[in-house]
Parts: sequence; structure tokens; C-alpha cells
Amino acid sequence: MAWQRVDLTTAQIDHLKTLVTGLVSTNESVLDQHGRDESAIAPVRPSAVVMPRSTDEVAAVLAYCNKEKIPVVAFGAGSSLEGHVLPLFGGISLDLTEMNKIIEIRADDLLVRVQPGVTRMALNEKLASSGLFFSVDPGADATLGGMASTGAAGTTTVRYGSMRENVLALTAVMADGTIIRTGRETRKLSAGYDLTRLLVGSEGTLAIITELTLRVFGIPEKMAAAIVRFPTLAEGVSAATTIVRSGISIARCEFLDAKCIKNVNAHDGLTLAEVPTLFFEFHGSPQGVQEDASSVKDIVEEFGGSDFEWTTDEGARRKLWQARHNAYWAGIAANPGKRAVSTDAAVPLSKLAEAVTVADELLAKYKYPYSILGHVADANFHCFIVTDPSKPEELEEVRHVTHEITMRIIEMGGTCTGEHGIGSGKIDALVAETGAAAVGIMKSIKQSLDPNNILNPGKVFN
Amino acid sequence: MAWQRVDLTTAQIDHLKTLVTGLVSTNESVLDQHGRDESAIAPVRPSAVVMPRSTDEVAAVLAYCNKEKIPVVAFGAGSSLEGHVLPLFGGISLDLTEMNKIIEIRADDLLVRVQPGVTRMALNEKLASSGLFFSVDPGADATLGGMASTGAAGTTTVRYGSMRENVLALTAVMADGTIIRTGRETRKLSAGYDLTRLLVGSEGTLAIITELTLRVFGIPEKMAAAIVRFPTLAEGVSAATTIVRSGISIARCEFLDAKCIKNVNAHDGLTLAEVPTLFFEFHGSPQGVQEDASSVKDIVEEFGGSDFEWTTDEGARRKLWQARHNAYWAGIAANPGKRAVSTDAAVPLSKLAEAVTVADELLAKYKYPYSILGHVADANFHCFIVTDPSKPEELEEVRHVTHEITMRIIEMGGTCTGEHGIGSGKIDALVAETGAAAVGIMKSIKQSLDPNNILNPGKVFN
Repeated sequence: MAWQRVDLTTAQIDHLKTLVTGLVSTNESVLDQHGRDESAIAPVRPSAVVMPRSTDEVAAVLAYCNKEKIPVVAFGAGSSLEGHVLPLFGGISLDLTEMNKIIEIRADDLLVRVQPGVTRMALNEKLASSGLFFSVDPGADATLGGMASTGAAGTTTVRYGSMRENVLALTAVMADGTIIRTGRETRKLSAGYDLTRLLVGSEGTLAIITELTLRVFGIPEKMAAAIVRFPTLAEGVSAATTIVRSGISIARCEFLDAKCIKNVNAHDGLTLAEVPTLFFEFHGSPQGVQEDASSVKDIVEEFGGSDFEWTTDEGARRKLWQARHNAYWAGIAANPGKRAVSTDAAVPLSKLAEAVTVADELLAKYKYPYSILGHVADANFHCFIVTDPSKPEELEEVRHVTHEITMRIIEMGGTCTGEHGIGSGKIDALVAETGAAAVGIMKSIKQSLDPNNILNPGKVFN
Repeated sequence: MAWQRVDLTTAQIDHLKTLVTGLVSTNESVLDQHGRDESAIAPVRPSAVVMPRSTDEVAAVLAYCNKEKIPVVAFGAGSSLEGHVLPLFGGISLDLTEMNKIIEIRADDLLVRVQPGVTRMALNEKLASSGLFFSVDPGADATLGGMASTGAAGTTTVRYGSMRENVLALTAVMADGTIIRTGRETRKLSAGYDLTRLLVGSEGTLAIITELTLRVFGIPEKMAAAIVRFPTLAEGVSAATTIVRSGISIARCEFLDAKCIKNVNAHDGLTLAEVPTLFFEFHGSPQGVQEDASSVKDIVEEFGGSDFEWTTDEGARRKLWQARHNAYWAGIAANPGKRAVSTDAAVPLSKLAEAVTVADELLAKYKYPYSILGHVADANFHCFIVTDPSKPEELEEVRHVTHEITMRIIEMGGTCTGEHGIGSGKIDALVAETGAAAVGIMKSIKQSLDPNNILNPGKVFN
């Protein structure tokens, strides 16, 4: 399935223009914009950018690219942290942002139908007036198609699940242009192989998603937030895993280390104490929320947690979570001109304190600024490591350290990626973690569904 | 991928005996026992029964059967309602019940590792002393391997999810004997294709599951049950869907029609009023449970619900749910010597009242005793229709009616199966529901992973 870079001929570009009503561009700035994401991986330009406006147009483009053996990489918001949208072997960047209609909001069925270019914030803005919200929240304002393709998760996953649990049905176009519908608009389904969950998280290597049916939830009657400080990193994360084991209902539970708090203070004009901190959110009935918060307070105090601050004020709650979401950019802002590499380990609950400590100790040996934060109730955490993009040898060294962390995590029974995906940077880690036999099965599936390997070549596998 | 019946030669049986330490049997009563399940489908004997005791033995058997082109059908408790375990084309029944070890209970990680022959009740008995429980509850005391293979769900799915959400990792043997490990013992995972969820619900057609890592939960601090009666079927189910939309946390919400209540009264010695009834269960903190129940009471009363009876007594709660679980056998017991056919429709929430009414009206036109019950908070319901197994023309007619119901459900945007699976009886319905293109993709995957079609031939597809 090896590729060399594919640059389109003028005839091919002209033909593509007959297949879509949107733009087909080879403008340099458009190519540049589609050649990078939020990762620190060096940009790679596509040969052309193609903007379809319907499932049928996507089908026509894929049928043509399959015949001509042109690589196709889907593009949404470009917020991937693993280089997913980089067209490593040229070909076209299939920009789906003009397919951004919210097709239908079905409040009575607690579901919505959207095109893949709709962003999660645009959807939530529209849903608010129906008293509903879409729960998956990776921080960035990603497109829903991109979030499905990468199996995104985020701060609310502990309560509401990731994309895997919240995508009910898909329309997708296979490599040869065949249009399929997977799943059903029902809350339960046991009809045949679970193609929906096979496509979710397949990182654009099996199909292009052109429509999604998503589960939505009623906005809770009451939401409250709390902050608590800890003497050490290990105590903070141990408190979080104990809360999960207790079965207390938490909607969010995020850990930020002292450096992370320092960065968000500077970026968001806050004055939080610069020590290891847990942010919580509670959703439910007024009494239930209070009861949950009070149970959490009891547990965190056993782990040396102090200054438990609690608020039901909507403005304060939003400000807190905005700061959390800005943590990535706050880390970069603290180091102007730099880029960040993010790890994405998840481990069994009981290994979290050890895993975070191992990562912290390894990173402390190097010169690179870093901070640690995470969705600790799911035992998933990120190390943000800042490097200078003008010094490729720095990126090389950082990659070496993150690989070392990843291998230690895998030894503990963890995974190299809880939510960011494999992309092109963790191909070896996937094999180390899952085994060559299981990766061989994944490749068989890829080979049978995309025999010419036109869909996002160079991602997930070599 | 067509098959004719395969009967093993003596040499083949002798060779299989060298591959496993358990029994290899052609005893007639053993063959009979492995040739039927809880469905009304006519029994079909395997040519031999093989009982492996380890993953390696399963691998040796599959490698051999693949070479010899011998069909392999996995067997557990035999509680399928869709004929999954019937060896339609002979070959071997691979009985996994001797692989019944609970390998490890990891309370700190909220997970367990089990062999596939462990039943859900055996697991829960063992877990109780750790204050934990495994949530998926299909009624029957099925094996966990069988539950994973069929993507089982049940009464608690509304709160805790189905097998799809609760299987974290698998060891499985592919058709050629290759052993793979899928998933990871983490709460989040985004590493490569989701093979775990591809195998869960694949009905034994893609691999044989030989080990499972399952998510478990802490036993809730408080559990309470409630019963409420309704004037009509439609009002009962509408109340249930309204409760779901309200976001109130319910652990179980089951509907039983008047005939169903009559059957369970007779079977379990109860004296429930024989009218449409909802059974509820609430899990949580003492105050939370009370608050949830009170909110539910307010809603059901809007829909004409009356006699809201509530209990936190553990004996009464258990008795209620035992009666619910016995509903299937109670329906058969009321008609001695008969067998039951069960439908398994699920629809979008807003269509549930209409769907149940349509099914009720269609069934009322025929002479067959039936009752309706369901996991209505998930908009999934079953019609149990009783037929005489000695009159194949009756089964034929019942199949005709259930197919008519299924097609109406599919037209409403529903599915032919919320939790029982396709088996051999809903192959056409799967195509009608999902479309030939998506079923074609499923077949491509099957073809690439089991090119000789030895794994459960005649199920899911023709």
C-alpha cells in the first residue's frame, strides 16, 4: 500500500471541477491552509483542494479519485493534534466545510441530523433554544465529521460518552464512491455488523462521512462547578479515581498541574492558586447536584484537597471551563512562536497516579516547557510539550521523549491514545499496544474496503 | 458463500480429539442439546460437539476446521431467541462452557476478566462480595461470550448500556486460527479500528471470543422499585418516553401489557392488577432516588398512571424483577407444550406508542396468544407470540405476521432488532433496513476475515 507523492494533472483538476459545485483550488494560500493542523508535524501541501456540497458530489469525486488512484484526505476545522488532515502523499484535500447544514433537530427523539462540516459550537448554539445540547466537547471547535472520524472525546465523556456512544447513524461514501447508510435513529440496535462504530475513529481511512445522526441530551436542570487544590499531582489524580470508583455522578472532572494553572491565569486573566487542581462539574436536579458535590468534597479532603470552592453561578462556571479549554493555547501563548506536542495516554484507573508521575519525571529531565492536564475521571491525560518549530532537532527529541512515555504507558496496560487517534505519529505504538495480529486484521479490513489505498494514506498504518 | 450440510468423517473427529483436552462427542443426546435454542426455529444437529478448554485449543480447532472447510458454530447457554447456535450446515458445535473461569476481578479498575463460558449470574454472584455488579441483564442466564457475540442488552441498558458499551477488550480467534487481542483495559481508547465493537454483535460469524474484559459498576448505595398502572398501552409507553426526555435518571423502565401481567401473576404467584403496567427501578443516593421517583410519579400521573407503588424493600424489589425476567417463560407456561416467537423492534422514541399500537392491532387479527412487553425507555419492545411446535404451518403464519410487523417498524425508521440480533430469521429485514450497499460492506468484511465462511454460516447473511 506504499505511495509516492501524487500531483494532479491539469486535466484531472479540470475534471474534478465538473464533479462539484463548490471550489476546486490550487491557490497557494488555500493549499497552505489545508496542509497543516494543530499538531507540530511539518506541513504538507495537497495538490488541490476540492469542496463538495453534497453526498452525491463526494461520491463522484471518490469514484474518480479511485479510478485515477489519487489520494483523498478529508478536511474540516483542521484542529487535529495528530496530523490527520495532512496530505502526506499529495492528492486532494476534500474540504467538507461547505456541507454545514443542521438538517433536522428532533427534540422528541433526542437526536439531530447534521452535515459533517457543522462545528460542535454551531450545533450547540442552535440546540440551546430547544433546551438540548450535544455533549462531546474536545475543547477545539471541531467539525462533527472530523470528531466522528477521529472518535473524539473530551471533558464530558465521563458522563455522556465519546463520539462512539453519541453517533447513532452515518451516511458515508466508500473509496469507490458507493454511498452507504449505517446505524439507525434508534437508541438500541443489533442489526448486523456495527459499521457506525467501525467508521467512527477510522481517521478517514475507510470512508468519507457525509451525514451524521447524533444523540443529544436535555440541558440539565442544574449545573454547578467546583475547584479544589492539592499538595501534589499524585494526590489530585488519586482523588479523582476514587470519586469514579465511588459511583458519584460527575459531569466533568479535569486535572491541571501547577504550570497549566499558571498558563491559564496569564491567558485568561485569572488568579487561581498555582498548584495541582481539579475542576469539577455536576449536572442534575438542584438537590442531587448539591448532594454529589458534598460527597466529592468529603473524598477530596481525604486526599489533602483544600479550598473546595463551589459555584452555581452560570458566568463563573462558563469562565472556568473556558479557561480549561484554553489550556492548550495558553501553553503556546506562554511561549510565543512555539508549537506544542501533546501526548494522549489513558491507563487503567488504578495506574493513573503512577502514569502521571512517570510522565512528569521523564519530562523533567529535558529542557522543554511542559504542563500536564487531563480527563482524569477517565484516566486519560495529556502532557503538552512546547518546542521551537524552526528547530527540527527539538521536535525530534520531543518525539523521542513522548515515545518513551508512550511505551511506559503501554507496559502499564494503557493506550497510546485515549482520544486523539493514531494519525501518522503513533503507527509503531499501535502495533506495540495491540499486537501485529490485530493490526493485521485492521489492515485486511482496510484492504477490502479501500483496495487502492486512496483514503488518507499513511495514517493508522504504514 | 453457499454451503451444503457437512458431516465429519471418523478421521476428522479423531483428529479433533487430538486438538482439545475437553470432550469431542457425537452422542445423540449431546448433539440434540446443541441443536436447539430458545427460539421456535426447528432444531438442527451438529455433526459433532467439541469442548475446548483454552484459547490455544480453540485456535487449533479453527485452524483445522478452516483447512478442512468444516463449519463452526459457538455454543454457550443456548438461550438465543434467534437461532444463533443452530448449526444450519452441520459441522461442529464449539461448546465453550468449560471455559468458565473468572480470571480476575480488579475492583480498583472497575473491570473483570472472564472466559466466555461464565454466565452473567455466576459473575454477579462472585462480584457481590466486592460491592460490584455487571450491569447487562438480558433476563436469561446467558454466557458472557454469547452475550458479547449477540450484542446483548436488557432491562438496565437505559442506564448502564449494552454489551457494546461494557466490553472493553477481547481475546478472539479468527477463522484461520490467528489469535488477536482487541481493545484495552482503559475507559477510553482511540487506537486504530474498533475491532472490539466489530466483533461484539457479529453473531459468531467473524471470530470466536475466548476472553472478555468487562466494565463493572459499584453497587448503588440505594435501589428502589416502583409500579404504576395505565388505562391503555399507548399511555403507558408515552409516559416512559416522556420520562426519558425529561432526563430523570432511571435504572430500569419496563412495560408489560395486561396479558403479560396475567401470565406473570400465574407463574410467580403475584396479584398485580391485570392492566398495562410500568415497572421502574432507581439507583443512586437515598435522597437522589427519592427525588427521581417523585419526578417520575408526577409525569406518569399526567398520562393517566395510577396506584404508583414504591418500595425500597430489597425482597419486594427482587421479586418484582424476577417476575419481569420470567415473563417469557410465564407466557410459555400459560400455554403448555407451545413455543414462543419474539419480535425485537426498536424505534425512534417519538414513534414508540404508534409502533406498539400497530403491532398490537396486527396481532389481534390472528388466533395466536400474544403479549407485549419492552424496554420502553430505549423504545425497544417485544411481542411474544405463542405457537404449537407440532404444527409447522402455525410457525409459518406467525413468521408472516412478525415479518409484517418488522416491515412496518422499518418504515417508521425503526430496526428489526434492538438486541436479539439477525440470526437466520431476519436476513431479508437487515437488507430492507440497512440497504444492500451497507450489507455489501458487511459481506466484504466477512469475506476478508473468513474467506471459507466456516464461522456460523447462514447467519446475518445468506
